[in-house]
Amino acid sequence: MLTMEIRITDEKTVHPQAGESLYKTLKDNGIYLIASCGGKGVCGKCRVKVLEGQVRSEATGKLLKKDIEEDVVLACKTFPESDILIEIPEESRLVIGDKIAVSKSRHLTDMLRSVEAGFSPKIRRISLELTPPTIEDNISDLERIKTALQQQGIEHIRFSHGFASSMAKALREAGWRVDLVYTDDFEAVSLRPSSHKDSFGLAVDIGTTTVVVYLVNCSVGTVIDVGGTYNSQMRFGDDVITRIVHATEGGELFELRNAVVSDINDIILPIMEKNNISAEDVESAVISGNTTMSQLFWGLDPLSIREEPYIPTLNAFPVWKAGTARIKINSQAPVYTLPCVGSYVGGDIVAGVLASRMHTKSEIALFMDIGTNGEIAIGNDEWLITAACSMGPCFEGSGIRHGMRATEGAIESVKIDPTTYEPFLGIIGNTTPHGICGSGMIDAISELFFSGIIDQRGKLRKDLETDRIRVEDEGPEYILYRGERRDIVLTEADIENVIRAKAALYAGVSVLLKEVGLSLDIVDRVYIAGGFGNYLDIGKAIMIGMLPDLPREKFSFIGNTSIAGAYLCLLSEKMRTEAEEIARKMTYMELSVSRGFMDEYMSALFLPHTDIGLFPTVKEFYKK
Amino acid sequence: MLTMEIRITDEKTVHPQAGESLYKTLKDNGIYLIASCGGKGVCGKCRVKVLEGQVRSEATGKLLKKDIEEDVVLACKTFPESDILIEIPEESRLVIGDKIAVSKSRHLTDMLRSVEAGFSPKIRRISLELTPPTIEDNISDLERIKTALQQQGIEHIRFSHGFASSMAKALREAGWRVDLVYTDDFEAVSLRPSSHKDSFGLAVDIGTTTVVVYLVNCSVGTVIDVGGTYNSQMRFGDDVITRIVHATEGGELFELRNAVVSDINDIILPIMEKNNISAEDVESAVISGNTTMSQLFWGLDPLSIREEPYIPTLNAFPVWKAGTARIKINSQAPVYTLPCVGSYVGGDIVAGVLASRMHTKSEIALFMDIGTNGEIAIGNDEWLITAACSMGPCFEGSGIRHGMRATEGAIESVKIDPTTYEPFLGIIGNTTPHGICGSGMIDAISELFFSGIIDQRGKLRKDLETDRIRVEDEGPEYILYRGERRDIVLTEADIENVIRAKAALYAGVSVLLKEVGLSLDIVDRVYIAGGFGNYLDIGKAIMIGMLPDLPREKFSFIGNTSIAGAYLCLLSEKMRTEAEEIARKMTYMELSVSRGFMDEYMSALFLPHTDIGLFPTVKEFYKK
Repeated sequence: MLTMEIRITDEKTVHPQAGESLYKTLKDNGIYLIASCGGKGVCGKCRVKVLEGQVRSEATGKLLKKDIEEDVVLACKTFPESDILIEIPEESRLVIGDKIAVSKSRHLTDMLRSVEAGFSPKIRRISLELTPPTIEDNISDLERIKTALQQQGIEHIRFSHGFASSMAKALREAGWRVDLVYTDDFEAVSLRPSSHKDSFGLAVDIGTTTVVVYLVNCSVGTVIDVGGTYNSQMRFGDDVITRIVHATEGGELFELRNAVVSDINDIILPIMEKNNISAEDVESAVISGNTTMSQLFWGLDPLSIREEPYIPTLNAFPVWKAGTARIKINSQAPVYTLPCVGSYVGGDIVAGVLASRMHTKSEIALFMDIGTNGEIAIGNDEWLITAACSMGPCFEGSGIRHGMRATEGAIESVKIDPTTYEPFLGIIGNTTPHGICGSGMIDAISELFFSGIIDQRGKLRKDLETDRIRVEDEGPEYILYRGERRDIVLTEADIENVIRAKAALYAGVSVLLKEVGLSLDIVDRVYIAGGFGNYLDIGKAIMIGMLPDLPREKFSFIGNTSIAGAYLCLLSEKMRTEAEEIARKMTYMELSVSRGFMDEYMSALFLPHTDIGLFPTVKEFYKK
Repeated sequence: MLTMEIRITDEKTVHPQAGESLYKTLKDNGIYLIASCGGKGVCGKCRVKVLEGQVRSEATGKLLKKDIEEDVVLACKTFPESDILIEIPEESRLVIGDKIAVSKSRHLTDMLRSVEAGFSPKIRRISLELTPPTIEDNISDLERIKTALQQQGIEHIRFSHGFASSMAKALREAGWRVDLVYTDDFEAVSLRPSSHKDSFGLAVDIGTTTVVVYLVNCSVGTVIDVGGTYNSQMRFGDDVITRIVHATEGGELFELRNAVVSDINDIILPIMEKNNISAEDVESAVISGNTTMSQLFWGLDPLSIREEPYIPTLNAFPVWKAGTARIKINSQAPVYTLPCVGSYVGGDIVAGVLASRMHTKSEIALFMDIGTNGEIAIGNDEWLITAACSMGPCFEGSGIRHGMRATEGAIESVKIDPTTYEPFLGIIGNTTPHGICGSGMIDAISELFFSGIIDQRGKLRKDLETDRIRVEDEGPEYILYRGERRDIVLTEADIENVIRAKAALYAGVSVLLKEVGLSLDIVDRVYIAGGFGNYLDIGKAIMIGMLPDLPREKFSFIGNTSIAGAYLCLLSEKMRTEAEEIARKMTYMELSVSRGFMDEYMSALFLPHTDIGLFPTVKEFYKK
């Protein structure tokens, strides 16, 4: 038994302790699976496929007959009975402890510290040394707290029913020496023993395709841990429109809400546990998402977003509570939502502009957030204009045969030898690859194009002397990696998806520039945001016509700015005020009613573009 | 079938429509039974006893084997199949449309109107004529509302999640012509079509034994209807201490909370239905109760009320919402709770002082609220002192063999011929009596005492020539009324209960006067409050030693002042401010730690008192 092993395809081998479930063994080895039900075999999320060996499964909750026939099991209720080989589907995975994200967050903390009064979290705390009551001094608990606050010059704090319900016990347990935690708009959150100083918060990025959470120590500003998973609203459709239809016509608003709220809870429960932080100690949260994601998170009917004249219920969200949001942290924790601009430009782009700092500089900047929605902003400290276009989830690893997020095991860079057609891969974590992420796709297509393996329309040439190209039932594909059990490929359909996405983004930028009557030359700086992991090869993104052909030094790749903006707002009142100013200041252009957009889009469905003159450096490269 | 009849013992005869349940027939004839479940046969509350005739019962939910053997049925699932005779237990009854209460409320409305700025309900409304959105004018719904408010000079309104959730639909359904309803502390409550002007509210008196609710038209101030029932927390004990023990040691806090909240809902659902008012249109509520009742209503652990040094969690309650309270009106409706003074002097006595107006006059007044807790206040516009004593629920009709509340069918006055020992009864509603209420008991005992039927200790004489006195298994009793199926009696045990109650009240007054070093002579006015119906015979209450022997013209009987104070606070910000001043100003004396109280109590366990010298007019009367 001691030598029993669990191998994970193309990944690693772990060893179970006696009697422990597959879920537990994987978790103890840093491989997290989603388990909303906490490992009770009920939610049906921790699916893995057993390829070899014997297991005993005690529950099959929510598994279909088809799953069972294919040896899919629930890891939380499955126990290995021999050496086994398993495959973990991407959608079962919870990515926790992403080192790239944690390291990238450091410059944000430094930036905050460098801004005057930059560090001022949503919640504050004040120490109260209360005299215990006696028969003579028998005022109520709440009056005792209020009197102590008045002595320190604090009045008009609001006390919710939830706070009052736990007050008597908290005071007595702490021996009347407590800290009152309250929000910057004077609502009591909780009473903590005075000895207990650290306060935590969540920065949450709700993307259409992925959900990412930072667990932050708000007392000092450090990101303690990061977790991410796919947005399980995806089962209701890939884009926001399909989901709105589902919420309104399908009457599934509450299912959509529950899906994303449960994703957030699925992420935070294991990271709180891993870092030994109780849910009660997480006392604030900030949410960043596009308008539809923000409304769905709060359970607000998105119907009017979709129907002309495309009106959101609210752009500036009041601060509501974690209990109302149903996030499993302190129920009284204030939840700040990044303000939205319009129906299709939301808090995520406001967060992005905020994190880029373009709104504080006189130079004209172009900001692009590459996600399932491509979101674009142009402007400077005087004006800002913005638009959004639908790119589909391909750069987030969805809708692509072997797509995955930019986490350990993802192919993030590709180089192809133009003579042998053999690829050289860069893998996140320098491990065996188990999929390809957004930056890997851009690299791969750029290389396939310039080595002549695909044509301007993205079609694979079948006449080349290489066994890297093959034609399967689903169509032609290029083999990036030959695996033990399965190869990692990029199919022609995958390439088409990417071309459609890059065309939408490029068309958006063109239309928006035309709208303000500016040419590309006027742009001093281009910020590229998105969940691409370590890097995005700007040159290659230009090569495929995704980004405009501007001098390379004008570009900065700034990562997931939706979560970065949420993090900034979690820690800084100044940043929240700036976010609100950005949202107010931005002019929102509705691309869906723009006549020029479809023409621009059609022209951009080539590599790099129908009009090669727009890409002089690519043209130059081509000549060589 | 047309002639089928349902007779109710000692009450009236009603005729069912074909196929309708007993519950429905009774309701249509103005006899309301409690039915928390809405007539689904589940809650087990609408019990009646079938004495004669055939019925068909479709459900027996929550009935015990014993109940079924005794022909107890659930009225909502029972259908008569012949003429029947039924008995309705007091605890199944919901008293609705109490004419006495409605008529008494009129002078309160007049009083409010006479006070400067007296009429200013908790909620306000403002008309907003919004321009419907277009592609060009596409700000969010909430921004549209905020802009319109700003134009009318109103800023800083808080918008809850509950409000926001229904906003988009409400705006569109009303064609963008809406009234915003908001609280006087600037929290949005609801959006109403502009055509829809009336706004309603609840004044709620949560007594230890009874619960009474006024449904009020807050736009004009009239009491539309009144409903009352027994506080079903009684199944956990008669007094507040037993209930606190149950809540804390028994872990039944939530059951106690649910009991009283469900009583309130049981009352309001039928009265809203009867008056054709939707729950959404009831937009504010005020709660008045003693400290324990107030805390239990809000689900706050009452443990520290009972343990030395007797500390309530809060005396001044923040305004929370109907949704939080779980009262089934508009979930966003603000719920104001009358402020409490200390562990055993609560919002009900603050309401009482407020309704009496003693705090606005220079004359020294003594206020007594006769309920399960006897609550006493002495003072004027400069000072106020208060105390509470436990009287038991006898004056509210509980713990008395044929006790009932002061509603239709209650014996409310008794006169006994001293030669024949025959009684003459006054009945509320001039109908057949089906029980005796508090004022009837005081009358009866006073008359029994002065006609020599009972002695100074309340024992019935068995040697008199009358068949009105008989000795049953449970002890001796006096027959007040000979009924068709049962007699209405006053037992020796009932009389003892009343003597204990009056002794506690009298002792409380004595100790409180001694505490402030005042004699009775200094008292200019005595206000007597309590749920006694039309009247309380002050003279007879003095005769039995319940009230101090002062000139009759000093006394005013002012009815249920707990609900009167709640009503005033529902309609008037000025009254709420006064209530808070009263609560702050009152000195609270804890009788349970007073050495003198027990001595005073023992001396008062006689008719009228051990020291007859304290009751000169009674002594005089005796001589005759």
